Formats: sequence, structure tokens, C-alpha cells
Amino acid sequence: MHNIALIGAGRIGQIHAQNVFLNSRLHLKSVVDPYEPAASQIADRWGAEVSTISAALADSEIDGVVIASATQTHLEYMIAAANAGKAIFCEKPVDLDLARALTAEQQLSSANVLIGFNRRFDPNFMALKSGLDNSRIGNLETVQITSNDPAPPPAEYIAGSGGLFKDMAIHDFDMSRWLIEEDAIEVYATGSCLTDPAIAEAGDIDTARVILRYPSGRICVIANSRRSGFGYDQRIEAFGSSGLLHVDNVRENHLRWASPEGEQISSVQDFFLDRYREAYIIEMDHFADVLSGERPRITYTDGVAALKLAEAAGRSLQAGTPIKM
Amino acid sequence: MHNIALIGAGRIGQIHAQNVFLNSRLHLKSVVDPYEPAASQIADRWGAEVSTISAALADSEIDGVVIASATQTHLEYMIAAANAGKAIFCEKPVDLDLARALTAEQQLSSANVLIGFNRRFDPNFMALKSGLDNSRIGNLETVQITSNDPAPPPAEYIAGSGGLFKDMAIHDFDMSRWLIEEDAIEVYATGSCLTDPAIAEAGDIDTARVILRYPSGRICVIANSRRSGFGYDQRIEAFGSSGLLHVDNVRENHLRWASPEGEQISSVQDFFLDRYREAYIIEMDHFADVLSGERPRITYTDGVAALKLAEAAGRSLQAGTPIKM
Amino acid sequence: MHNIALIGAGRIGQIHAQNVFLNSRLHLKSVVDPYEPAASQIADRWGAEVSTISAALADSEIDGVVIASATQTHLEYMIAAANAGKAIFCEKPVDLDLARALTAEQQLSSANVLIGFNRRFDPNFMALKSGLDNSRIGNLETVQITSNDPAPPPAEYIAGSGGLFKDMAIHDFDMSRWLIEEDAIEVYATGSCLTDPAIAEAGDIDTARVILRYPSGRICVIANSRRSGFGYDQRIEAFGSSGLLHVDNVRENHLRWASPEGEQISSVQDFFLDRYREAYIIEMDHFADVLSGERPRITYTDGVAALKLAEAAGRSLQAGTPIKM
Amino acid sequence: MHNIALIGAGRIGQIHAQNVFLNSRLHLKSVVDPYEPAASQIADRWGAEVSTISAALADSEIDGVVIASATQTHLEYMIAAANAGKAIFCEKPVDLDLARALTAEQQLSSANVLIGFNRRFDPNFMALKSGLDNSRIGNLETVQITSNDPAPPPAEYIAGSGGLFKDMAIHDFDMSRWLIEEDAIEVYATGSCLTDPAIAEAGDIDTARVILRYPSGRICVIANSRRSGFGYDQRIEAFGSSGLLHVDNVRENHLRWASPEGEQISSVQDFFLDRYREAYIIEMDHFADVLSGERPRITYTDGVAALKLAEAAGRSLQAGTPIKM
Repeated sequence: MHNIALIGAGRIGQIHAQNVFLNSRLHLKSVVDPYEPAASQIADRWGAEVSTISAALADSEIDGVVIASATQTHLEYMIAAANAGKAIFCEKPVDLDLARALTAEQQLSSANVLIGFNRRFDPNFMALKSGLDNSRIGNLETVQITSNDPAPPPAEYIAGSGGLFKDMAIHDFDMSRWLIEEDAIEVYATGSCLTDPAIAEAGDIDTARVILRYPSGRICVIANSRRSGFGYDQRIEAFGSSGLLHVDNVRENHLRWASPEGEQISSVQDFFLDRYREAYIIEMDHFADVLSGERPRITYTDGVAALKLAEAAGRSLQAGTPIKM
Repeated sequence: MHNIALIGAGRIGQIHAQNVFLNSRLHLKSVVDPYEPAASQIADRWGAEVSTISAALADSEIDGVVIASATQTHLEYMIAAANAGKAIFCEKPVDLDLARALTAEQQLSSANVLIGFNRRFDPNFMALKSGLDNSRIGNLETVQITSNDPAPPPAEYIAGSGGLFKDMAIHDFDMSRWLIEEDAIEVYATGSCLTDPAIAEAGDIDTARVILRYPSGRICVIANSRRSGFGYDQRIEAFGSSGLLHVDNVRENHLRWASPEGEQISSVQDFFLDRYREAYIIEMDHFADVLSGERPRITYTDGVAALKLAEAAGRSLQAGTPIKM
Repeated sequence: MHNIALIGAGRIGQIHAQNVFLNSRLHLKSVVDPYEPAASQIADRWGAEVSTISAALADSEIDGVVIASATQTHLEYMIAAANAGKAIFCEKPVDLDLARALTAEQQLSSANVLIGFNRRFDPNFMALKSGLDNSRIGNLETVQITSNDPAPPPAEYIAGSGGLFKDMAIHDFDMSRWLIEEDAIEVYATGSCLTDPAIAEAGDIDTARVILRYPSGRICVIANSRRSGFGYDQRIEAFGSSGLLHVDNVRENHLRWASPEGEQISSVQDFFLDRYREAYIIEMDHFADVLSGERPRITYTDGVAALKLAEAAGRSLQAGTPIKM
Repeated sequence: MHNIALIGAGRIGQIHAQNVFLNSRLHLKSVVDPYEPAASQIADRWGAEVSTISAALADSEIDGVVIASATQTHLEYMIAAANAGKAIFCEKPVDLDLARALTAEQQLSSANVLIGFNRRFDPNFMALKSGLDNSRIGNLETVQITSNDPAPPPAEYIAGSGGLFKDMAIHDFDMSRWLIEEDAIEVYATGSCLTDPAIAEAGDIDTARVILRYPSGRICVIANSRRSGFGYDQRIEAFGSSGLLHVDNVRENHLRWASPEGEQISSVQDFFLDRYREAYIIEMDHFADVLSGERPRITYTDGVAALKLAEAAGRSLQAGTPIKM
């Protein structure tokens, strides 16, 4: 059993706390949050203690920390935890500022850090990746990532979000790297504000298309919208020389209703915590692997690489022209 | 080119006329119908001549006849055509009266007769049969045939129809024989009148379930309704020792409409001439095979065998108990 | 918080223990099992105490018991718990012997008993039931329940199982009652042994079809096999006067693989604890409702009624003829 | 009945001849082809006469011409037919050279010309368009057109084809105009040669992604490959403010095969004449409408507009940067 300190007792922290508790290799020992009632609630629920960052990092019984605090604290807490010799699971993104993230790269790329790009642990996308690895479609040629949120966030969220590319598409940039296993040589991004004028006023877009090109000639398209209009739309298509692997959306249920007007099937799950429920469990189990000595499947370097693509997409959008990487 | 005489210029006769015309091995020479304007219309459309039964059968240039006239004439015309040495394609059923049909069995089972159980030529069901023949599911164990009409016929039609088993389920009895390739040893049928009281007043049912048992222990269920409520519901499931082959319904189109309420797909085709359009073409092409010397895939004996099962189902319904065959 | 004693620490007991623990309205206080290490393991995992039946029932802090012990103990433990005034959740079936079950009916039908027919709590089947209740398909006419296990149990299990109808189809008999809300007036059952001769030697069948008839003229077909050949096949079709509601199987994932040979989609989940994972959670939440004063949705009387149908199906199979209820 | 002259007796000419013959409002009178045996074969099959261009255009009984000859003759024949006052159905593209096509625009945009962008008549895409017109998804925001051929043509075909954008994507450019009903203001195209080095040697690409931007902020992505690896991949997704309309591929049949490895569904149709069989019939029926006085749904101006987009895409590919329209 590896003892865990959870840093951050918000919505995602609650998910991680339960998954730590239910994992037979992990034990939730401490919970840290500047808002003490939130920390207490989680600690009480799962039989843990309320603590502080410094106490948790100084606790020699703590083997790993789960960082689920606000984005701007990620870097500071990772560095502190690395200095304390703890294994680190940190939520994405590593930071919103690429330059700042790069300053920590030397230290954190050699620390025991797992970055929480949860989609890599989704059983559906894992099955797609496994199909690629087993050459189900011959040589991979193109990838289409469709990633639309059910509804846009409040405009006040947009301001501090880092923008669509760093806040939302960051997942898709990571997925492109995981699936294609090449470094993009060119990024072209375009976008519009179609769902809410307040988003444009905040300097952001809500609808984007990004094209990534690779040395091999492969091409990847990322399609994003803050509002799908019908649920949480999370699909990937991977085209190869001999076929196509694609992941469909996950639906609420498997009922079908046939009438003279047609056949109605269930709506798509519209909450990311439902859609990726299993992914969070498997992700935490991989952190148990990491605590047992396995190499993290998503490193700090991966976190920085996704941020670089997001940053390039932003520059392409501004310039109206492709950006060389 | 084989010259064909079409006997019967009604709705299904029109289909057969076009399919004869479009078949590169067949030539529509004569059209016969007691209602001359119907015969003329088809003859004009496809460059054929209007004729009479006796003239068509006496015409030495006619190689085959397509019998698409009223059910009660099937037997008489088949016998006459067999006497004239013509190859015969005859619509189902061979007759509504089993005893009468049996009197002609000796002659017609050795004549060159193809009975028009069109569903055997549907590409979907042919693919299922091919899967069985290629042992895709190991040993066949059970079959479920779901065969529901979109809407009940007028009550006046019911009276002369022969009843649900001979009029509608006759297709399904034939499909069970084709797929299972065993003679049923027991038939149990039950049914209700749920769609229209006039059907019960006419002495018939509109909803039925039939269970057929075979020497091997295999079991087949036939499910029928005169009214599906959502289209022409034509599905088959074949369960084997290592899997399942099933044919889904055919839809009007491939549009999908996702909204917050769910995803709507197209309605099911609701007209048998649409659903089995290709089957009629392939069926007629098989008649060209028969004219070229191939053995008919569906013989008069098959027509009688389906009628025997329909008749036994009727007796089981009356008796409320299974009937041994 | 309602305090719970779990009686029976086997495979299904472990599921219930976790679901009690994770339910915010329930607290797992005691675990009872004749095999003490099994009880200890669960008690340790969830912070409960190991106890005995008598101690647990005498414990005034215990509000409800979850009976997940061997089938032949269900009746005895339900009676004891009812005598102790506890709310009762008991796994299906109530007993394998109808006569014995009937002796307790007076007492247990008025006790606070919830019988664990888990499928009624499956979100897919609940959505179907809700569609019926909201008249999505007009008047319900016929129901098709397809319920096939992935693989047959060992032959030695068959001997003590009560046979296919009481052991396996019992769920389907309960579902028919829940969906149709009428008492069947006639039961016809037929079956074969196709998967394993040892099952026939043990006096049982592995493949069955049951037809139930109702006063309204409605008809229900239950199709069972101990071996689907492709996974845990759990589907229901409900046909009404204006449409069809049907629940499809649940698959392992949502990957699709298109190749020149066709498109392959994921296999069907093949373990009942996966297929009904959510149903068990919702079922236990309903037990929390019951402890809060709600009427159990599945009573002892329901448990007995399903057993009556199973018993009638067995008699029909023996007699080869329908049984009046 | 409108008399038709068919110009061009190749593969697509044969399709049009049959569709003219089967259309009750049209009569195939003449067939023209420089290779007389091809013209004779069609003329014999459908009861028409072999003719020449000049004779057919001089024939006062001819109401309309169907131009299905080689691409480089389209413009010349359209002009001649317009001068002769005939209604014109002409296969796509209007020409491979935009400058040349523009020289005829004044004359042909006011003539009675229907350009054969057959996909607009596909029942699936018509259903999608109808959904847009009926505001099924609120305000249209983005469109994804996926259009992949089953296999690349021979490299010698590539040389004279006009390149991927004019030869293949021309259909998709037309579809984008039809669905979005705005003029693109910017075109960005990128591409690779991944399927056959001979295509690169011929100066072309086989894999492309094009992004079109519109004044409203809408965005369209066109995805093309000369080789899908699994069939003729023809899909469209239209995202709106309140949902998604998408057209799936059409499969060979509706058989599904469930096994422990998963469920296999039929392969996608892999021949355009099968996939668009109905579209060609409906398109010809629309030409009958045009002959009866209806305005052509696809004009010469539409043909030129698609060519402009294809030409801009080619320039963007060369320049590596978006092109303003």
C-alpha cells in the first residue's frame, strides 16, 4: 500500500479521492486544501486526515501526491513535491505559460511525474491505440479528433482559462502526440466565435479547426467547439493504409425506440466525469504502477509538448497562417 | 434470350415485367390478364404483346411463364404450363388448400417449377444463409424470425386471405425450412387479435407466435404481427454454438440526427416492394438460370411443405396444443 | 444513515458490501458468514465488524439486512429478520421450492422485504419501462425477452440449481411481470439440451423457449440459452400499437474497426457483474429508500409469483402442452 | 415525353441511358459516340437510334441532351447544344481550366443547363439538407465532409485528371456550397502523397485536408484520400447550435455477425455507381423537371464556382498558406 496525499479538494479532487480509496494498492492518508471544510469533507468520507502542503510533503509515510489544485499552482506544487522526493500525479495542464513551464522542465522531466491527461486511459481510446499498435489498419495516415463540449463555460471562466487551445484542445494535442508518435512540423489553426459574443469579448474563440502536419506526410485535424448542441462529443478517427479505427460517442443507455418517425437512440453522455469515469479509475491505477516503480506513461515532457502545440495554434490563429515548429 | 409470358398484370406482375425486361437473358414476349387494359399497359411499356393463356402456352417461342395472377389460379395455370412444357415461375403460395395442392404434387414436383418465395433472394438473408453454410456460428441451435407488416390489410381482404398463417407466415415457414434444413416434428402456435376487431370477426388473428421443434433439438420461433407500428419489420436471428448471425431492418436512409433528446435514425422501409426490390431482381435472374438448365432453388415440393406447416399452425391454434408433424 | 448487516460474504456479497459503503445513506456495520475469513475480509475492507446472524439480528442499531447467502437459507433468514423487525433485502430466488415459499407468504408479504431482481434496476431496462409508462408505443402488445448466458455452468452446478427455469429464467419471469403488469393465464415451455450432454444427464435443459399468454391477448416470449456463443446476451423488445422499444446489448467499448472485410464493433460484455454493475448500485439505493419508508418495488409476493411461473414452465416442459395458470 | 440525345456512350453514359429509359417522362431517341459500337450497343438495348452530334442537335424532335463524354469536350458540346436551344444535362466538371470555363459563363449561365453533381441528389444527403432547411440543428456552424475513394486510380490517369482538387474534391466543394449557402472567403489546403509514389511523380497528392472559412464565421473541413482502405467512404457531418446531422456510409447488406471477438457488420459499398445508384435516377428525374420548365437546381454558375474553389485549393497547397477568395 502506497500512502497518498491529495492536494486540492474540489470536484476533480473528490473523484481522485474515491479512486484512491477504492484502489487496493493505494491508501488516502492526507487531504490538503486552503478551504478547510472541503478538505475535511473528503478526509471524513474516506478515513483520511486533513493536512497542509508542507506537513504532507514532510511526512515520510507519504509516498505520492495527487495534485488537483488550481492550474496556476501546479508548477509550484510539483517542484515542491519533487524536492521532497514524492511520486507526483498532477492534473493537466502543467501550466498556462509555456515559458514558465519550460523553466521547470529539466527538474521535472527527470522526476517521477505523471500528468493527468485522462483520455489516454479511456478504455475506448486505449482500444483504438491498441489497434494501431497491432497494425489493424496498416500504416497510419491521418487522424481526425472531434472534441466538443456540451455547453460553453461562463464568460468569466474564459478570461482566466488560457483560451480554447490551452484550456480545451490541450487534451486533443496530447492525444495527437500519443496516437501519431511524431512531432508535428507545422500547425495551422483557424477559429470563430459562434456560441456566445461574450467569449469574443474576452478575446477567445469557441469554435476551432487545427491541422497538424508531420515529417512522414501524416496529417491530423482537431475539431473543437465549446458547444456541441447534443452532448459531450468525443470521437476519434484514425485512417490507415488498410482501414479505419474510430471511437464513437458513449450514450446514456442502450434503449432504442422505433416509431413511424424513425428510431430514436439514447442521447450522448454530456458530463465529462461520466464519460471518463473509467478513465479516471485506470489513470489512478497507473499511478499505483508508478509508485511501484513503473515509468509514468505521460511525463512532464509530454505535458510541455502539448502546451507547445497549443501555444503554436494560438500564434497561427493570430497570424492567419501556418506556423513551423 | 429466353422468351417469357407474364400471366397476371397486377402490382406484382408489373414488378416482374420490369425485371424480365432489364434481365439481359430474358425477353418479355407476352402479357396475359383478364383485364385487358392492365395487360396492354405493361405490354406497351416493355414492348411486348397482349395475349391469352392458351395462346401463350401454345406459342412455341415462349420458353417460360411467370404466374402472378390471383392465388386461386396458381395451381390451374401451373398444371397447364407444365403440360405445355414451359418452365414455370409461380408466385407464392401454391394454393390456400393443402389437399388440393397435394393432388398436383406428383406432376408439379417433377416439372420445372420455381416458387416465388422472394425472401430467399434478399441479399441480407442470403448473406445470413451463407454465414450458416460457412459455419460462422458453429452448429445452428435456434432461429428467431420476426416478420411484422407495417399495417393490417382491410378486413374484407382477411376473409379470402387464407388467414395469417397461410397468407403472411407462409414466407416465414419457408424461411425456417431454408435456414434449418430439417423437417419440423412439432408445431405450436398461439395468437390474438389486437389490432382490429374486424379481423377477429372474420375468424382470423393478427398477432401470432409459433414454435417449431426439430429432430436435432433445434428450436425456431416465428413472431408475426399484421401491424408493427413502425414499418416493415423483417429480421432474423440465427444462434449457433459459437455466435449469432442476425439481419437488421433496412432503413429509408442513413441520416442520423443528434439532439439533446437523443439521436434519431431513419425509419424502417415500410413497403415490401421497396424492402425486397433487389430480391425480386435476383429471383428473376434465378429464373433465367432455371431456363438455362439450372435446378430451381425453390420447388413445388417446397411450396407444399410451407403450406403444411401453415396448416399445422392453424390446427395448433384451434386445439390450443402442439401438433405433431 | 441506516446501519446494515450483510449476511453472506461470497461474490455477490462483496458487490453489495461495496455498494452499501459507497451509498451515502447506508453504513455497513456487520458482516456475517459461516466461513469467517470471508466475513473478515469484507469487514476489514469497509470498516465493518464480523458478527453472527443472531447477534446482528439482536443488534438494535442494525436497521436492515442484506441476505446474500446460499439460496436454501434465504427463507429462514428472511423469517428471522422479519421477526427481528429488520428491513430486508434478499437475493433472488426466494426459494427453489414453491410449496415451501408459499408457507411463508403471509408473513413475508407483509414484512418490509425487497427481493433482489437486479434487472429491474438496470438503467437500460428502466428506460424501456419508462417508455412503456409514458405510452411511447401506444398499447403494449407483445414482449420478447432474450436472455442468454455466455457459457454454461459446470454440470455439477446444474444438479442443485433448481433447473434452467428456476435458476436462470426466473429473472425473465420477473421481468415479464414487471413490464406487462398482468398475470399470465397460460404458460407453454419447450426446451432442448444442445450445449453439454452432462446437463441432460443431470435432468435439465440448456435451451428453452417459453410463451406466456395474458387475459388482454398480449403474448410474451422468453428465449434462453446457457451459452450464447458471443457474450452475455440480454435484450428485450416491447412491441406496441404504435412502435417498438428495445434494449440492445452492452458492449465492452465503442471502438469500430473498418476494413475491406467489414466493420468490427466490440464484443458484448460477458460477465453479469459488469453488465449489471449500475443495476446493483441503484438497487441498493432503492433499499436505502425502503429503509427511509418507501414501499419496496419488488416484494416477497413478486418473488413467489416469478417462482410460480418457473414451476409452471417446468410442468409444461414435462407435459409437452400448455399449462393453465 | 421529352426526347433525349445521349452524347457519350461510356460507363456513365450507360447509366444515364437506362435512367432515361426507365423515366416515364423521358424517351431516349439518339445516342452519339465517336466509337460507333458503343453507341450501337446502347441504342440497341434501349430502342434508340445511333446519331451524330450535329444531326442530334439539328433534330427538332430532340428536347434535351445528356452530355457524358470526355471532360475536355464538355464545354464545346454545352455551347453547341445551347446554340441549338436544347436543354442540357452535363456531367461534372464543366472543364478543368477555370479561365476557359469563365469564357463561356455569360452564355451558359443563362442557358438551360443542369450540371451533374450527382451527390446533391443522393437521398441521404438530401435528407441532411432538408434537416438543415427545417432548422433541425438550429443555426449551422461547421461542416465536415469526408470523401475517400476506395482505391487510387492508375498513375497514368492522374496526369490528365486535373489533380485531386479538380478531379475528386470538386464534388465536395460543390457539396460545401450547397449545404452552407455562403461564398467562402478563405481556402487553406494541405496534402501529402501517401498511397503511391507514382502519384507524387505525376505532380499530384492523394491525401488532402481543406479548410474553408465564411463571412458568418462558419468553417468547413473537407477530408479526402484516394484510398480509404475499407470502401467508398462518403460521410458528412453538419454541426449546428442545437445538434448534429450526419450521414453514415452505406453498407453492402444488413447482416451482423456476433462472435466472441466482437460483432462484424457488412463492409461499406465500394463502387460509386452502387453508392449513388438512386442519386443518378433522381438526378435524371430532375432533368425531366427541367425539361418541363423547372429551374435547374445546379447551374453552370455552380459548376464554375466549384472549380474556383478547387483552383484556390491548388494554389494554397503550392503556397503553403491560406488563399483569400
